Amino acid sequence: MHAQGCETCLIQNPLDLLYLTGLPLSAGKLCVHAKETLLFVDGRYLQIAQEKAPMKVCLDEKEAVLTFLHAHKCKSVWFDGQHTSYEAFLRWKQTVKDIDFVSKSSFFKTLRVIKDDQEIHKMKKSAQLLWQGFQHIRAQLKGGITEKELSKRFEIFCLEQGGEGLAFEPIIAFGPNSAMPHYRSKDVPLKAGDIVLIDIGVIVDQYHSDMTRVLFFQTPDPDLEKYYQINKAAHDAALTACRPGIPIGMLDRAARDVMAAHQVEHLFVHSLGHGIGLETHEFPRIKWDGEDKDVLIEPGMVFTVEPGLYVPGKGGVRYEDTILITETGYENFYPREVF
Amino acid sequence: MHAQGCETCLIQNPLDLLYLTGLPLSAGKLCVHAKETLLFVDGRYLQIAQEKAPMKVCLDEKEAVLTFLHAHKCKSVWFDGQHTSYEAFLRWKQTVKDIDFVSKSSFFKTLRVIKDDQEIHKMKKSAQLLWQGFQHIRAQLKGGITEKELSKRFEIFCLEQGGEGLAFEPIIAFGPNSAMPHYRSKDVPLKAGDIVLIDIGVIVDQYHSDMTRVLFFQTPDPDLEKYYQINKAAHDAALTACRPGIPIGMLDRAARDVMAAHQVEHLFVHSLGHGIGLETHEFPRIKWDGEDKDVLIEPGMVFTVEPGLYVPGKGGVRYEDTILITETGYENFYPREVF
Repeated sequence: MHAQGCETCLIQNPLDLLYLTGLPLSAGKLCVHAKETLLFVDGRYLQIAQEKAPMKVCLDEKEAVLTFLHAHKCKSVWFDGQHTSYEAFLRWKQTVKDIDFVSKSSFFKTLRVIKDDQEIHKMKKSAQLLWQGFQHIRAQLKGGITEKELSKRFEIFCLEQGGEGLAFEPIIAFGPNSAMPHYRSKDVPLKAGDIVLIDIGVIVDQYHSDMTRVLFFQTPDPDLEKYYQINKAAHDAALTACRPGIPIGMLDRAARDVMAAHQVEHLFVHSLGHGIGLETHEFPRIKWDGEDKDVLIEPGMVFTVEPGLYVPGKGGVRYEDTILITETGYENFYPREVF
Repeated sequence: MHAQGCETCLIQNPLDLLYLTGLPLSAGKLCVHAKETLLFVDGRYLQIAQEKAPMKVCLDEKEAVLTFLHAHKCKSVWFDGQHTSYEAFLRWKQTVKDIDFVSKSSFFKTLRVIKDDQEIHKMKKSAQLLWQGFQHIRAQLKGGITEKELSKRFEIFCLEQGGEGLAFEPIIAFGPNSAMPHYRSKDVPLKAGDIVLIDIGVIVDQYHSDMTRVLFFQTPDPDLEKYYQINKAAHDAALTACRPGIPIGMLDRAARDVMAAHQVEHLFVHSLGHGIGLETHEFPRIKWDGEDKDVLIEPGMVFTVEPGLYVPGKGGVRYEDTILITETGYENFYPREVF
């Protein structure tokens, strides 16, 4: 905070509160000032916060935060304008007229980007359960089973094996449905020759995992198999570029260069990947022309690499891993398997 | 819109978009103007929106919304400041300098409050599954089973029986843990004499359900049993007051009057209930001194009634039903059972 010129900051995003206090608070305010850090919670959370929070706790009554700010003679407070509603901002402005509220989402968004050993341990557990769940449903691929049924079996397996829940609704798409990157599974039965796209994620110890594979059920479609190979080569090119010091947008460029060489870059309609942790989609977004493109890769970052090629009406391929950046390169949370 | 003086409105809350378009869009913009309604979506949703949305669809490119607003000579646009981030508002203001953006969350928050027959049908299905799940876990209460285990068994049962997922993490609390209204289930085993609080909800056809019961395992604690009876009487008083035309805050007052007569009103630390539908917590919030207190009850409203009394260190009781307001009174989604 000091290095960036921040005098006081106000944290309200529940996931940032979880990260900084260890407590699952659906609401609360953490005020951080050089001289004091104070957590404000309402009556529902007072007891648990007083027992467990690693900082002083105070009941969030009408003027409590204001009293804190005035006691420390605060002139400006940084807040996260991306996770604060316009009306909440208006209420602040109306209550506190002598303090400048400065929206600095760029400051807050980097807060959780470097994962420590404990977080990495949890993320690997999450990835491990995901992979077991993937093996579980892969073994159940047979003609007639529906996308929805497979999705439900994955969810039940993960819950039974100790997962807290799904990171997101599984995207399990058969045949031409796989061409829609954000498809919702339906009651569509599997048939010979279908491509099967499986994009799944679970939550273990509050950490999310995310992985995609595509399989061909019985006879593969030669066109889609060709796209699969190009896409896999694009994925490999991005992974090969992964190491500390590289601007993250370059990974997307590396994947796109492979696609461009095969004249299929226009079929890649989303970004290459995203940070992951307490949320499935975290900072940074990996896109060659996106706002985070110049973010330098650092050890401890965990993000997905997931190029895809989509042919509307025919089908799509995507290959997604989640990787941890190490001192010298990267570590992949998922096995490389040839199907 | 016309009656309230709204010329154009811009809807971005994903649940409002789901309600108005029938599509699960994680992002999108619906512009409603007297002469035209247009749905703007990004590339991920274009195909599905064009196939299924009940209105004209347009790709949400850089200037697309602006072009729409200018084409209709819009001077002011109402938006939902409670579901729009401060930074998103700033971006609007910077892009569109000649149009006034007016935050009107009070206009948007009432959008989904009256449920139609189709919605009520789905909500009853959701409540029915919840009740089956409740019976399922009630039958499994035995010494040594943990809160977490019971919670997981509820989740798996609901998934197996066709639920889409949980409406929220079950609050299953044994003994003194029940005194925390927003408790998270832990690895705590059940023992004789424990009070058991079960607050659960599921999602069926995208509609949420919500219900709480408390049970005594083997010997009931006489004090908590006394609180249970007072609380149940408070619940009955609120239900008796339920009918069209009554200001909703009166329900909370009716429950509190019963508690006050027994000198325990101070142990009721939350509001009486909340609207429910596509979200577990919807408008209105039912509190005698809350901002929605003067909202008049209307047929088609669905909300929870859930008084509770909490004694820190000892235990808590809560009794929660979800009711539908009818022309003459109300219909309860849950059976009244004496335990």
